[in-house]
Amino acid sequence: MTTDVVACCTPVSAGSLAEPEAAALAEAFAALADPVRLRLLSFITSATDEVCACDLVEPSGRSQPTVSHHMKILVDAGLVSRQKRGQWVWYRPVPERLEALRRVLG
Amino acid sequence: MTTDVVACCTPVSAGSLAEPEAAALAEAFAALADPVRLRLLSFITSATDEVCACDLVEPSGRSQPTVSHHMKILVDAGLVSRQKRGQWVWYRPVPERLEALRRVLG
Repeated sequence: MTTDVVACCTPVSAGSLAEPEAAALAEAFAALADPVRLRLLSFITSATDEVCACDLVEPSGRSQPTVSHHMKILVDAGLVSRQKRGQWVWYRPVPERLEALRRVLG
Repeated sequence: MTTDVVACCTPVSAGSLAEPEAAALAEAFAALADPVRLRLLSFITSATDEVCACDLVEPSGRSQPTVSHHMKILVDAGLVSRQKRGQWVWYRPVPERLEALRRVLG
């Protein structure tokens, strides 16, 4: 025979986000709290290959220095990687970092 | 006969995030730029059902007023819904809003 126990509250999972991981992820989310950076990230994640900095100016509607400023924040947050070849800089997403952020969102 | 054209840059997708959507999503990401709120959200998304405010105090290590303050920001950002029943408030995730944020992350 089993006894039904009705808890007063739904138990909170012990497998939830730990404090140090939350602090690191919060910094990455802060980098995304800007519409220009969100659009720049979307250009990069929706591309089939790496994206040249030169290709971010026209679709974002922002100047090259503004694009560079925002891209530096995305790179520093670990969301995008950056490689300089010749006169141009190329960007690609960092999938494992983006996946870590997606996991927090359920 | 076809001519191979090698583009100098990877084309940026026309299907990327539009400016109004980016502005709305950036506000939601701003709500996540805080480790306490990220942990509160993780408690709620990892629960199997709605979570009582009374159950967020102990795992978050924050006082009830602090929890309420942060939960209000998550609710205002549309990430969590709130229902008051009797003396307690109950929270559950807003899946379609969280999914919209996940989509930006590739």
